[in-house]
Amino acid sequence: MIYPELLQKLINFYKKLPGIGDKSAERMALATIEFAEKDVKEYAEVLVNAKEKLHKCKICGHLCEDEICNICANPARDKNLICVIEDYKSVFSFEKVGNYKGVYHVLNGLISPMDSIGPEDINIASLVKRVSELDHPELILALKSSIEGETTTLYIKKIFEKQDVTISRLSYGIPMGAEIDYLDIITLDKALEDRKKISE
Amino acid sequence: MIYPELLQKLINFYKKLPGIGDKSAERMALATIEFAEKDVKEYAEVLVNAKEKLHKCKICGHLCEDEICNICANPARDKNLICVIEDYKSVFSFEKVGNYKGVYHVLNGLISPMDSIGPEDINIASLVKRVSELDHPELILALKSSIEGETTTLYIKKIFEKQDVTISRLSYGIPMGAEIDYLDIITLDKALEDRKKISE
Repeated sequence: MIYPELLQKLINFYKKLPGIGDKSAERMALATIEFAEKDVKEYAEVLVNAKEKLHKCKICGHLCEDEICNICANPARDKNLICVIEDYKSVFSFEKVGNYKGVYHVLNGLISPMDSIGPEDINIASLVKRVSELDHPELILALKSSIEGETTTLYIKKIFEKQDVTISRLSYGIPMGAEIDYLDIITLDKALEDRKKISE
Repeated sequence: MIYPELLQKLINFYKKLPGIGDKSAERMALATIEFAEKDVKEYAEVLVNAKEKLHKCKICGHLCEDEICNICANPARDKNLICVIEDYKSVFSFEKVGNYKGVYHVLNGLISPMDSIGPEDINIASLVKRVSELDHPELILALKSSIEGETTTLYIKKIFEKQDVTISRLSYGIPMGAEIDYLDIITLDKALEDRKKISE
């Protein structure tokens, strides 16, 4: 064995993390044992605490330490505007943008008949209940443009068809700064379809 | 704050690791809380244990869990052949190659007058003592080809000048598979200087 056993164990844990290969895991493990002892102890505590104490918000399914997440608990957020997303990673993305003033609903998956994931396997029932308690809410469906994303979007659209709910989706189009010449044809096609009038 | 506090703390620890930026740290933290609870507990234990229990081998300065490292304790290793290296990371590199049958001596630094690091600040005294107990040993100086590396190599060479010690250094030369046309001139110059006769 090349590494002392404990170092090897630490390397093995680091290698389980996404994007970390042999070389990075070794570098990370060696850096870790150079940390101050109290930092390593705190690091270990944070690991255990994060795993134990982070759970899903009772309202929206986002990750939080309390019963209800900061966003749902914030009186300044518009509860009638709900952005429906696949997982809580998207919450972080939207919050980084910082312009969205509504709340979220985390589906925790997408409908995928191929993988036997039906509407009952994702967080849709709670969305229906949530919407039923609101007065003319708007749902923004921010799901990816895959077959599963489209299927889920269509399914949700259908559920609320007869109800007093506005449903929108994110616009497709040209990413900012992209060269039109290098865009894939599907994106370009969607950008044409979703074109926005700027003068009439 | 975009992240729940505990997640932010975990992200902050991951960001302290070499080569880990904001995005990777976020991915790693989110992956961590998806681990099984018992795995996270073991992960935290390994962290603390690795920091507490890994220390320097009394003989060679390599990282180990016991008083003496596996390599020094291995009777099959040639104790008269000592590869002198800057830090224990090099031990892992040589051990990965797997062909070296001698032992190591970890200097834990290089002489660097610019940074006020003198011979007494690195692990040289213990090398002198070690060598004095051996019968015509060979020292392979495997230090980097920087000013500090060269200074340290020269210093060690000088110490043992009058003693019954063979001193060698790694050969400089063309890395395997490299195109000669693209090599830097210093490497090419060294490869010329270190040329090896293959027929006489």
